[in-house]
Amino acid sequence: MMKIIAFGIREDEQVAVDAWVAKHPDVQVDTTNELLTPETAPMAAGYDVVNILQAGVPVGEATLKQLADLGIHILTLRNVGTDDLDFEMLKKYNFHVSNVPRYSPNAIAEHAMIQMARLFRHMKQMDIKVYRHDLAWAPTIGREVRKQTIGIVGTGNIGRVAIQIAQGFGAKVIAYDKYQNPELAAKGLYVDTLDELLAQADGISLHVPGIPENHYLINPDSIAKMKDHAVIVNAGRGNLVDTDAVIAALDSGKLDGFAMDTYEDEGGLFNVDWAGQDFPDPRVADLITRENVIVSPHTAFYTWTASEEMVEQSLDAGLAFFNGETPEQVVKF
Amino acid sequence: MMKIIAFGIREDEQVAVDAWVAKHPDVQVDTTNELLTPETAPMAAGYDVVNILQAGVPVGEATLKQLADLGIHILTLRNVGTDDLDFEMLKKYNFHVSNVPRYSPNAIAEHAMIQMARLFRHMKQMDIKVYRHDLAWAPTIGREVRKQTIGIVGTGNIGRVAIQIAQGFGAKVIAYDKYQNPELAAKGLYVDTLDELLAQADGISLHVPGIPENHYLINPDSIAKMKDHAVIVNAGRGNLVDTDAVIAALDSGKLDGFAMDTYEDEGGLFNVDWAGQDFPDPRVADLITRENVIVSPHTAFYTWTASEEMVEQSLDAGLAFFNGETPEQVVKF
Repeated sequence: MMKIIAFGIREDEQVAVDAWVAKHPDVQVDTTNELLTPETAPMAAGYDVVNILQAGVPVGEATLKQLADLGIHILTLRNVGTDDLDFEMLKKYNFHVSNVPRYSPNAIAEHAMIQMARLFRHMKQMDIKVYRHDLAWAPTIGREVRKQTIGIVGTGNIGRVAIQIAQGFGAKVIAYDKYQNPELAAKGLYVDTLDELLAQADGISLHVPGIPENHYLINPDSIAKMKDHAVIVNAGRGNLVDTDAVIAALDSGKLDGFAMDTYEDEGGLFNVDWAGQDFPDPRVADLITRENVIVSPHTAFYTWTASEEMVEQSLDAGLAFFNGETPEQVVKF
Repeated sequence: MMKIIAFGIREDEQVAVDAWVAKHPDVQVDTTNELLTPETAPMAAGYDVVNILQAGVPVGEATLKQLADLGIHILTLRNVGTDDLDFEMLKKYNFHVSNVPRYSPNAIAEHAMIQMARLFRHMKQMDIKVYRHDLAWAPTIGREVRKQTIGIVGTGNIGRVAIQIAQGFGAKVIAYDKYQNPELAAKGLYVDTLDELLAQADGISLHVPGIPENHYLINPDSIAKMKDHAVIVNAGRGNLVDTDAVIAALDSGKLDGFAMDTYEDEGGLFNVDWAGQDFPDPRVADLITRENVIVSPHTAFYTWTASEEMVEQSLDAGLAFFNGETPEQVVKF
């Protein structure tokens, strides 16, 4: 019987593991909430596949040599990012590696559009008033989503779902992407340049990859090109946004709101309980307390559906490697 | 020149008044932020029409006799509810009265669907964690809106917009109304009975009028018929919901969330700043602090578009009465 050990399993993931095992009675999957480290690597003795989601904890030679000595050469990730992996060592010890590059685009698109709607409607301001027992209406009046022009930057899987949601609200949607989707192009949703989108949109949502050419796509210059009182949602990648530029534009009143699910310096910050402690980066504490900024800790993806798909795909990939196949989630290096 | 005096004008309404005046140079509209009372009634001297939004402050003989003595017999309301008016006295003093029964259905439908999405995604729980500097993901995992069945009770103007928004999210939508809309019926959205809707829906949004037959539509029996972990949104009328029954179901875990924009005992509670004070009703304070309950003070309607439409229609109605016409917003009594 093939045996998989999964490290760093959260409670929600255990549900998905159990569901997968029920469909694969020929595979044994054991789980631990410990992450994979040189200290925990011996727990993999007797297993064929190691399955991980490290969230910032590196996997280097000290760990990989132990796994290889245990006869393990299959490492499957439950997430997209491979930054934690030492690929030279993975090559040296003959590992097969997979990740999960695509899962529920709706998880992120829904989050982005819900937060944008909350910004337009000034709902965080009202939530805070209600907490203070201030139940007065004025001046916390909102803008109707249907009356806004929503600009979607990046029309991959996630951006396209965001467009459907925005259109359901009755908003006017415009989109920009270097690589146009033929179906959206036929519907006339694209503007020709990013500048046109910036000039027309009341709300801008970022769904492009965090590649170098998109670094600081939102910066003092691009903000200056936006409409007054625009709002920005970043549930894409942290490096798309120059945070200082956004803070300056919030202070000046140029921007009416900002929703931030990813952050340019988020390594080691998110998915950690800092309750009662200062953050290493005081900007984040400042943003959280602003009435027109909604911060979430990279949780736009965090739904039962996405969690299930990440677990399923990573276990499927391990099974494929074990059977001598190459899963579509293979990481080439 | 015809002259209108508008009482109780908020800043957002002044914007709409100014816009209306710009289109009606032959009418003079003066405004005050004072409400209409026996003390302020003399301010109406010299005017033809009195325009009000009272929000709980009664208009009785002491006020109406003064207006009649000033030769004023036109009273136009900027809102729907006429509970503050003494109709016997209005009849005695020969008043024409109008209200604004219909305005932007999107204002309320958007609010209802945004709050429902927030409940499904456990966003208030995450907002609270983030405020405490707890940036850990688990256990605050959400349900994707697209995977839910959303039940819309009442398919008038507001319910129908809510359906479009829910469908934009990709959710399965079912609807119930005693009076079916032919277009929705053709699409097969209706279930035959309220019980069917209660049994199938993951989220229920109420958009029926607060007439006696709908009183406590949500009660211990109807909640018992719902799916476990359902969520309820009430941006309709306060008396649709037995609040104690909802609290019991939140305590037992039967309900996963509740969004409340209207409340069965809201008279004198909402649109008042109680900061630093206890509410007359301790249930409201309790609900506000719950992590899975989102309270707003009857502000689902409160958008620039709705405010503008309410002001415009009330001024249009005053002009119509003055010209001897009967506006469509006439209140018959």
